[in-house]
Amino acid sequence: MTTISEQDITVEKTQNSKLKDTDFNNLPFGKVFSDHMLISRYKEGSWSIPEVVPYQPITLDPSAKIFHYGQSVFEGMKAYKDDNDDIYLFRPLENCKRLNISSKRLAIPEIPESYFMEGLKKLLKVDQDWIPTTSGSALYIRPFVFASGNGFHASPANEYIFIIATAPSGAYFSGKVTVAIEEKYSRSANGGVGYAKAGGNYAGQFYPTQLAIDKGYNQVIWTDDTTHEYIEEAGAMNIFVRINDTLITAPTSDRILDGITRKSILEIAKKEGINVDVRRISVKEIVEAAKNGSLKEMFGSGTAAVISPISGFGYKNKDYTLPELDDSYANKLKTLITDIQYNRSEDPFNWRTKID
Amino acid sequence: MTTISEQDITVEKTQNSKLKDTDFNNLPFGKVFSDHMLISRYKEGSWSIPEVVPYQPITLDPSAKIFHYGQSVFEGMKAYKDDNDDIYLFRPLENCKRLNISSKRLAIPEIPESYFMEGLKKLLKVDQDWIPTTSGSALYIRPFVFASGNGFHASPANEYIFIIATAPSGAYFSGKVTVAIEEKYSRSANGGVGYAKAGGNYAGQFYPTQLAIDKGYNQVIWTDDTTHEYIEEAGAMNIFVRINDTLITAPTSDRILDGITRKSILEIAKKEGINVDVRRISVKEIVEAAKNGSLKEMFGSGTAAVISPISGFGYKNKDYTLPELDDSYANKLKTLITDIQYNRSEDPFNWRTKID
Repeated sequence: MTTISEQDITVEKTQNSKLKDTDFNNLPFGKVFSDHMLISRYKEGSWSIPEVVPYQPITLDPSAKIFHYGQSVFEGMKAYKDDNDDIYLFRPLENCKRLNISSKRLAIPEIPESYFMEGLKKLLKVDQDWIPTTSGSALYIRPFVFASGNGFHASPANEYIFIIATAPSGAYFSGKVTVAIEEKYSRSANGGVGYAKAGGNYAGQFYPTQLAIDKGYNQVIWTDDTTHEYIEEAGAMNIFVRINDTLITAPTSDRILDGITRKSILEIAKKEGINVDVRRISVKEIVEAAKNGSLKEMFGSGTAAVISPISGFGYKNKDYTLPELDDSYANKLKTLITDIQYNRSEDPFNWRTKID
Repeated sequence: MTTISEQDITVEKTQNSKLKDTDFNNLPFGKVFSDHMLISRYKEGSWSIPEVVPYQPITLDPSAKIFHYGQSVFEGMKAYKDDNDDIYLFRPLENCKRLNISSKRLAIPEIPESYFMEGLKKLLKVDQDWIPTTSGSALYIRPFVFASGNGFHASPANEYIFIIATAPSGAYFSGKVTVAIEEKYSRSANGGVGYAKAGGNYAGQFYPTQLAIDKGYNQVIWTDDTTHEYIEEAGAMNIFVRINDTLITAPTSDRILDGITRKSILEIAKKEGINVDVRRISVKEIVEAAKNGSLKEMFGSGTAAVISPISGFGYKNKDYTLPELDDSYANKLKTLITDIQYNRSEDPFNWRTKID
C-alpha cells in the first residue's frame, strides 16, 4: 500500500461557509455538518489519494451495491479542543485499524493507514474552527466506506467510496438511560459480523429498539442469540456492570464490538485499583444482584455516548431500579477519560494525539 | 394507506433510449439497465405517488443513513414474455408482501400495495421492449427501499426512497454449481433479520463466500449459527436435498428467507406426486447419504437462480460428488415452473399475472 504525507492531500475550500450560521451553544448530536469532508475513491484495484473538498452530496447509480447489499462500514471518533485551542484525537490509530478489520469481514478493500491518518489530520486543520469548545461538546468524526460499484448481483462491488465527514456535537444521550434486556431479538450471530462496525448491524436493531422505546426504555441490551441468558452489548455502547466493588464487562467475541472506550476504561480502572473482571455475565446474575442489593451500577461506554449511566433495566416484565451513588465508578471513570481526551490531565497511557 | 390506480402514475419518457445499443443475445445478469425506473419518496410520514422517470442517478447527503446503518430492503422478481409477446409476472403480490415484511423488521415504512403493484405494471408497459425473448432470459426486476434521511445517529431515518429498476438478464449461474457447507461463519442469528431481504444479510456473506470461491466452490450453504450441524439456505437460494425419492428442504424460520420459488416448488412437487418433506436436515445426514448412495440430488431455488442443480459439495476438507441423473427432480421441476412462468403451460395454481 502507498504511504502518503499530509502535503500530498489537496484542499478545495468551500465558497459558502456555514460556520457563522451554526449555534455552538445548542449542538445536537450528528445533525450539523462541518464545511469540508475528506474523500477517496477505490477503482481498478486502488484507492485515490484522498482530497479535502467542500461537504457535498454523493451521486450514485440506482444499482450501486450500497443500496442493495449493505456493503458498508464506519467508525466513530471525536476531536477535542483544550483551553489553548489545541486539538487532540483519542487513540485514532485504533479506529483506523478497526475500520480495516470491519472492511475485511465485509469484503471491502482496506484503506492505507496514511490515507486515513494524514487525511484526517488535514481535514481537522481545514475545519478546526468547527471543533466546539462548549462543555460536553466535541467534533464527532465519521469515517465510512461504502460500495459504489454497480450491479444487481449479490457479490462484492468493484468500486468504493471512503469519506470522513465531521459534525460538531453535543451529548448523544440526554438524561438518564433505561434499558430493556432483550429476550427475543438478537443483534448478531456466532460466526457473523457483530464485531464489525457494519451498517447492517445497526439497521437490524432499530425495530426491536423501537419496541423497547414504546415500553418506556431508551435502549436495548442484547443477549446471546442461542440462549438469551448472557448480556452482550447495547448496539451503540458496550456494557459494564458493577456488582459490589467489582466492575464486570463481557469479553469481546465475533458477536461484540471491540470498543475503544471499553478497553480504555478497563485500563483506567485497573490503574485506579478497581477490581475488574472480563467474563460472561448472565442476566440471572444481574437480576439476583439487583434483588439482593449487590448490583451497584450499570453503564454503557462508547465514543458517542462516552460513559452513560444506566438508571434501571427491564426484564421479563419487571423493572429494576439502580441506586444513585455518590462515588459511582461511572462518574469517576468518565472524569478520568474525558480529562485525558480534553488535555485536562496527564496522559499516562499515551492515548492523545495532538494535531499540529 | 392510499390506494391508487395505474392512471395516477405519471410517466416522463427518456430522450436517450439505450435499447438499440443493447445486445439481447448476450445478456449478463443484472448489469444492463432498462430506460426507465419507478420512484416514490417517503417524507413527513407518507409515500409520494410513484412516478415512472428515466433511469437516473440518485443524489444523497453523505450523512444519508443508508451509507451508515444499512437500512435497506429489496426484492427480486422477473417479467416473462411468451411467444405472442404477452407479458407475465409470477406471483408478484408475494414479493410486495415480503418487501413489507422485510421493511417492518428494518423499521422502514411499508409501501402501499397499489403503489407497488400499479407502479410495477406501468413501468413494465413503458419498458416492455426491454423484456427479452431469448431462451433462458427474462427481465429481472429489482424493487428496493433505502434510508435517504440524514444524520450520524443510529436510529431509523425519517426519509426513504422506493425504486423499481429492471435489467434484461441471462442466467445467474452459468454451468454447474458446487457448494461448500459452512463450518465457521454464519449468515443469520436466531431473533435476527435472516428472514428479511435486508441489504446487510448479503454483505455479511461476501467474505466467507470468497473464501469458498478461493477453494474452488461457487457458493456457500449456510448452517445454523449455534451448532453448524443443520443446513439453512445458500444466501441467494433456498436449498433442496433429494434422498432416495424424497425431496427435503429446511423449514423457514426467522433465519431463513421464505423463498417464493421455494414454496412454489413445494406445491408443484406435491401435485406431481413427489414425496416432500419440510424438516431440518443435518449435515451428517447429507454426508451419510452421499456415502451410501441415497443422496440423489441437491439444488438451489430462487428468482435469480430459478433452479440451480448442485454437482458437488465440500465439507470438512472432503469433496462429495453428486450423480448425474436422467430423471432429476431439478430438471423436471425447472421445466414445470418455467413453463408456468413463460405461459407455455396451464397455470393450475393461478400464479401468473398478465400485464395488459
